[in-house]
Amino acid sequence: MQTVDQYGIFELLFTSGDEGPVVGEGIFSKDGKEYRVKGFKDGDAYRLRFMPGETGVWNYTVRYGGAEEAGSFRCAEAPAGIHGPVRATGFHFRYDDGERYLPFGTTCYAWTHQSEETQEATLRSLDAAPFNKLRMCIFPKHMPYNHNEPECFPFRKKADGTWNVYEPDPRFWRHLEKRVAELAEKGIEADLILFHPYDRWGFSTLSMEENLVYLDYCVARLAAYRNVWWSLANEYDVVTARKTEDWNRFGSLLAETDPYHHLISIHQCFTPFPKADWMTHCSMQTGLVRNALLWREEYQRPVIIDECGYEGDIEFGWGNLSAFELVHRCWTAVCAGAYVTHGETFYREDEVLWWAKGGVLRGESVVRLRFLKDVLSGLPRELDPFPPPRWLPNPNESKPKSGEDADGIVSALLKMPEAERNRWRVALSPAVVESPDYRLEYLGRTCPAFWDLELSEKGRYRVEIIDVWEMTRRVFAEEASGRVRVTLPAKEGIALLITHLSGEE
Amino acid sequence: MQTVDQYGIFELLFTSGDEGPVVGEGIFSKDGKEYRVKGFKDGDAYRLRFMPGETGVWNYTVRYGGAEEAGSFRCAEAPAGIHGPVRATGFHFRYDDGERYLPFGTTCYAWTHQSEETQEATLRSLDAAPFNKLRMCIFPKHMPYNHNEPECFPFRKKADGTWNVYEPDPRFWRHLEKRVAELAEKGIEADLILFHPYDRWGFSTLSMEENLVYLDYCVARLAAYRNVWWSLANEYDVVTARKTEDWNRFGSLLAETDPYHHLISIHQCFTPFPKADWMTHCSMQTGLVRNALLWREEYQRPVIIDECGYEGDIEFGWGNLSAFELVHRCWTAVCAGAYVTHGETFYREDEVLWWAKGGVLRGESVVRLRFLKDVLSGLPRELDPFPPPRWLPNPNESKPKSGEDADGIVSALLKMPEAERNRWRVALSPAVVESPDYRLEYLGRTCPAFWDLELSEKGRYRVEIIDVWEMTRRVFAEEASGRVRVTLPAKEGIALLITHLSGEE
Repeated sequence: MQTVDQYGIFELLFTSGDEGPVVGEGIFSKDGKEYRVKGFKDGDAYRLRFMPGETGVWNYTVRYGGAEEAGSFRCAEAPAGIHGPVRATGFHFRYDDGERYLPFGTTCYAWTHQSEETQEATLRSLDAAPFNKLRMCIFPKHMPYNHNEPECFPFRKKADGTWNVYEPDPRFWRHLEKRVAELAEKGIEADLILFHPYDRWGFSTLSMEENLVYLDYCVARLAAYRNVWWSLANEYDVVTARKTEDWNRFGSLLAETDPYHHLISIHQCFTPFPKADWMTHCSMQTGLVRNALLWREEYQRPVIIDECGYEGDIEFGWGNLSAFELVHRCWTAVCAGAYVTHGETFYREDEVLWWAKGGVLRGESVVRLRFLKDVLSGLPRELDPFPPPRWLPNPNESKPKSGEDADGIVSALLKMPEAERNRWRVALSPAVVESPDYRLEYLGRTCPAFWDLELSEKGRYRVEIIDVWEMTRRVFAEEASGRVRVTLPAKEGIALLITHLSGEE
Repeated sequence: MQTVDQYGIFELLFTSGDEGPVVGEGIFSKDGKEYRVKGFKDGDAYRLRFMPGETGVWNYTVRYGGAEEAGSFRCAEAPAGIHGPVRATGFHFRYDDGERYLPFGTTCYAWTHQSEETQEATLRSLDAAPFNKLRMCIFPKHMPYNHNEPECFPFRKKADGTWNVYEPDPRFWRHLEKRVAELAEKGIEADLILFHPYDRWGFSTLSMEENLVYLDYCVARLAAYRNVWWSLANEYDVVTARKTEDWNRFGSLLAETDPYHHLISIHQCFTPFPKADWMTHCSMQTGLVRNALLWREEYQRPVIIDECGYEGDIEFGWGNLSAFELVHRCWTAVCAGAYVTHGETFYREDEVLWWAKGGVLRGESVVRLRFLKDVLSGLPRELDPFPPPRWLPNPNESKPKSGEDADGIVSALLKMPEAERNRWRVALSPAVVESPDYRLEYLGRTCPAFWDLELSEKGRYRVEIIDVWEMTRRVFAEEASGRVRVTLPAKEGIALLITHLSGEE
């Protein structure tokens, strides 16, 4: 009996009397659970893929072109380090096997459309980097610094020169899935962007029917890769051909037809997409990363700030942040209970900028994001922010700690329209995440010379001072309790990590 | 005939049969123009003051306690450097004699309530500083770092221990006006804050009637000082005892009764005060200083960001900005067409922090604000920002220059509610001010390695690169024209100054 690793791919090859890019159906079952997958055209043949999520014997039945075939295979335990697809749980993520997953992504929108040499360089760069997620487009990208023509396209053309979505080009898809598989081997999630507006070829203006054929093909062909995430769009709100209801239709289709329930999100330029059942998490663009506090409230899902600007030196405001600013935004986001994604846009004569094409990483933020990832990974559990205060007349709710007239301030806040007050709720909330035994506070660009802690008198706490730029952790007090004034270096980029060691909290 | 300098003070002393803090009236006339001023109680006597704004002979009639007295005096030309009260004109300021005034204020809320020694130190610090406006409260201040009791108070107390606003304490007022006069000698405008919420003595909870008596007294006593500005409140929206209509009543009263029409503003904690006729300019608190673009549109008046946070290292977010951040905010505000005010809050054991008490300046922003002031003063005229784009379907309006899909972006922006779109209008506007022959662009925290200019082919332009932190100006091109790629150091805090030298624009 054939053996396949758990979270690996079982594949059948067949020829079909039927026509079309997606043909046939396979039903895979074990212990009464059934998974339905579809076959897809790959050149002259058809393939059908299944990713088993449980060890043991799986039985299947496959139907195509009037024929039916049955069989079984054995699923062996996943090799060490393979944990399956990532799932959203509460405001955080876990792999399918329960292992903690802290997303630290980066961005190479069009890396699979570059020269072989550049793609190989990208993979080598990823080997040396801390990233475990990659935002990448299926369609090629047209934009400043993106003028080169890709070698192949997802579809063949009709006689009139327009795309024939019923004729996928196997060269394109074999290449794409090879890259997805290589990322999987490196432990990197492929956050596949299905649509985007930056186009000169006509992919952003296909009809709804054409889009649905394309999506069906993506699911049939790619869903069996454990590291696939579905990102409906990069900047959905700039895709003029599509309306809110279209995106909802896409999202629902994926949620229904992807048998593995890979993560599904949608990324905006300006206006976050309205909450929908098919969304597994928020994929947000903003420089104002503390808005994550409100998005957590509104969406009740994990928030990834997938775009907060890029470290670089090009002429566009989104692509010329200092390394410090990007690192600062990432710490700020994390201490608002969100996750973050990196990007880099340093000018090059040859236009090979990491954010779109991959290649070589040159910035100073990468090593510091690794430090942030190490700090978080070193904690035994995820931390969550205090909910931002609502200032409703509630005696249990904390008043602003601004050193000002608390009653007057609350009264002024309560007179505001809600949207305005929400901005103040964010602005006046501290950048603190905590669990019962840890507390991480990021002081951002503020430069206090000291910080007063009110710890329990009955507990014992370790107080560490973290310098996010210098990447140092210094123990200020090994066994603190009660009121503690922590002396600080009065500079930007300082965080405090307080660990409860023993005693009552 | 007595001689008084233009913009100086002519004063009469009298005793009155009437009772009350404000008694009698003087009518001063010249060339058919009449100014009415009131007398005020000063201990056992009454005084009546008049500031002549024009040279030549002035006649007056004074009535008090049933008596009437007439006389005249000669007004001599103002000494060199004395230009009279500051007036708002369009989005900028001018002295009464037409001389340009570029406000560069600082903040010492309660400096007149400190020890004599501290006050003298404050004056020495101001001598060495570039500031030409001082935000200062009439009432004392209660807040963290403000616990010391002032030596005297504006009113005497009633038997029940509450304030008797009908009995001003001459010690207090003589001292205050001495300080106002000393500031005038230094060329510093006294931006007098009439009310504020940070109080433990009961000044913020006086009745409306008591407030009106106090205001009447302030006008009678202080308006003759050329450098007085009226700031109705620091953080009006945190003063729980007063409503919008009360502030409007105060503003209208000042506009009607101050014969010199000194500047009148009101400062907010959160919500800017609604536009009103009596407002001569906007006195705003915000860290988001580019909002000045919207406030210019809304208020059609000059905008001063009177509080954008303070350089310092205390525990409060408003009081621990790095010097760079404050300097950055000031350049940003200026390049949004606004003016700025400085403040400093470095921790001291003795609680003498500049922002409240004055004393000694320790920060690194002051010298850099002088540099900014020098750059602006070196230009022959005020510069104004481009109006932020509205993105209405208007072919003459510029589309976003973000290197992205301009049509898609405009379409996304037009779908937004107005308040949301306004925030994007600000975010996507460049930080540029210009006049027909100058253009100043601040690149803020962005770090481009180059900047492309599209100058007229027929003109000749000087291009200077300004480093706002290092305080350097370097000529990049002495005679540029047409398309120019300016090479930049790819760091935060860079501005470009482009001067049109000759030829067609």
